[in-house]
Amino acid sequence: MRIAIDVMGGDNAPDAVISGALESIELLDEDDELILVGPKGRIEPQLPSLKSREGAISVVDAPEVIDMDEAPIESVRRKRRSSIAVMAKMAKKDQVDAVISAGNTGACVAAFQMRMRNLPGVNRPGIAVVFPTFEGPVTICDVGANIACKPINLYQYAVMASMHSKHLLGIKNPRVGLMSIGQEDAKGNEIVKEARELMKSDSNMNFVGNIEGRDIFEGVCDVAVCDGFVGNVILKLTEGLVDGLFKAIKHELMAEKLRLAMKFKPVMKRIYGKYDYNEYGGAPLLGVNGTALICHGASHSRTFKNAILTSKRYYTRKINDKIIEYLSGTPIYSMSQDRNAQRPV
Amino acid sequence: MRIAIDVMGGDNAPDAVISGALESIELLDEDDELILVGPKGRIEPQLPSLKSREGAISVVDAPEVIDMDEAPIESVRRKRRSSIAVMAKMAKKDQVDAVISAGNTGACVAAFQMRMRNLPGVNRPGIAVVFPTFEGPVTICDVGANIACKPINLYQYAVMASMHSKHLLGIKNPRVGLMSIGQEDAKGNEIVKEARELMKSDSNMNFVGNIEGRDIFEGVCDVAVCDGFVGNVILKLTEGLVDGLFKAIKHELMAEKLRLAMKFKPVMKRIYGKYDYNEYGGAPLLGVNGTALICHGASHSRTFKNAILTSKRYYTRKINDKIIEYLSGTPIYSMSQDRNAQRPV
Repeated sequence: MRIAIDVMGGDNAPDAVISGALESIELLDEDDELILVGPKGRIEPQLPSLKSREGAISVVDAPEVIDMDEAPIESVRRKRRSSIAVMAKMAKKDQVDAVISAGNTGACVAAFQMRMRNLPGVNRPGIAVVFPTFEGPVTICDVGANIACKPINLYQYAVMASMHSKHLLGIKNPRVGLMSIGQEDAKGNEIVKEARELMKSDSNMNFVGNIEGRDIFEGVCDVAVCDGFVGNVILKLTEGLVDGLFKAIKHELMAEKLRLAMKFKPVMKRIYGKYDYNEYGGAPLLGVNGTALICHGASHSRTFKNAILTSKRYYTRKINDKIIEYLSGTPIYSMSQDRNAQRPV
Repeated sequence: MRIAIDVMGGDNAPDAVISGALESIELLDEDDELILVGPKGRIEPQLPSLKSREGAISVVDAPEVIDMDEAPIESVRRKRRSSIAVMAKMAKKDQVDAVISAGNTGACVAAFQMRMRNLPGVNRPGIAVVFPTFEGPVTICDVGANIACKPINLYQYAVMASMHSKHLLGIKNPRVGLMSIGQEDAKGNEIVKEARELMKSDSNMNFVGNIEGRDIFEGVCDVAVCDGFVGNVILKLTEGLVDGLFKAIKHELMAEKLRLAMKFKPVMKRIYGKYDYNEYGGAPLLGVNGTALICHGASHSRTFKNAILTSKRYYTRKINDKIIEYLSGTPIYSMSQDRNAQRPV
């Protein structure tokens, strides 16, 4: 398998990406290949000679960089030699089997969707993040690819995230919840209500109905579906709150007694570990015709190593085939066969 | 001041409401009056004889109850003798100065808006909840009154929540953030982008720009503005996550050492107290022509006591007058003078 990774993506690039890639080498198979995409002059001096695994790592030059705050579509069009644009093009030409980036999320979504196109039956891709809750992992889709969702998009996120939950995380019959503001049928805006009807009408889906914000952490569902605006708020709020609470606990403990704080440290670390997004490495962009992972901007080397391993799992377990198979077997499938089905944003 | 409270509202009604009301009596002024609204036969046997404050508490009969899962508008129209409908009518007739309920939120919003009407210049009321973060209290509006917001609604929530933050919480020049999915101008959906322009154009507003989910807990703003769908998800997610994290900490500590868990208990309690919504008692429905507080369904007696005190503060500090004054002084004010300005939902 050929895995391309954006060396210039994220706050800790390029060092963290390169070390993560090097760490992953030992965990990949003999015939796996890593392609580091970025400015050749910056990458090559950092690569040790890997005699034991010759040919396992190669470099593809991409001298331009898309900054985190650049406008997605414009930047991808203008910077054709950026790592993101180059990777997307390689995926299109079938020169790589997976692409991974911690760069500008909007630019990644735009470039991957534009070049790789959508899976048959999928109108809009969605980013699926795994929340490692205390009741088990919950896959949330979408967390930022599509902030103007139609009901059919939400339905397809439910399907795709279910396939992800089942075949990547190993959850047998994933329970799907639709994010709303109350459990009753009548709650939610018009888009949520229509999506609810689509999901209810699909007898293959283990749909548990509307869920509320707190349900994510209470073992009510394995998949939570929402539009990219709400999902993005959920993702960042959770990060901020967990960070804030742990800082507060540390602060209060230090004020109390240093010894108590020291004793609590391993407990804190263990709990923190359970909420650690680095464990899953990257979030797949579900619905593009290929394997594309988007990583957190603050990713460090372990995150990149895990993202590389996740991309391999995603690819070898054929999650995309499962999605196509599912969608082609549902009556709702025909609804998505509109003119826009194969067009990028 | 005459304060009406819905005795049948919330999971712990009527007992918690009645004890909360009795507890508040000692903290109110001589000429304050509490009106308990609910089934007379259930309330009166629970009232002790209050010789020291005769006339401080009275009962108004409302034999019907609106359940938590009933459709808001329909239930208010059908159950005219319910506590929520009766309170709303009393407010309309100027028989009370404030109304408080922990009942069906949708029914409260519908009834209060329908009867009390909106403040001049306000198109749609919004529920403002105070998040007691470690960096200070953040007022979030709206958390569920209006799930189909227009840009002008978001702008007005910013104004109203600022007045709340300034005059009720005592924050001098509240910094206002607009909830979005990135800090850059270009981020967010069309409604958010338009609201952003309205807020930027108001030189009286201390607008700090877009905020993301994590910023709520990082001392970036004193007021966070969002639509009722997003706000409701934020509110419930935060509750669920805080509960879940504390449960997890307890669990891990118990597994470790009982003694350590016992030592950590006071620290946990102190931190939990800082995130305690019961402290603020109730969330004002900003924008209705009167003082209306909506309490959490899980409120207990202390919450109701605090809600009664908050309603008094809201009323005596004339928050509504400040809102009217602010809105009448901005050029945007004229935009809100459309046909719908005074009409209920």
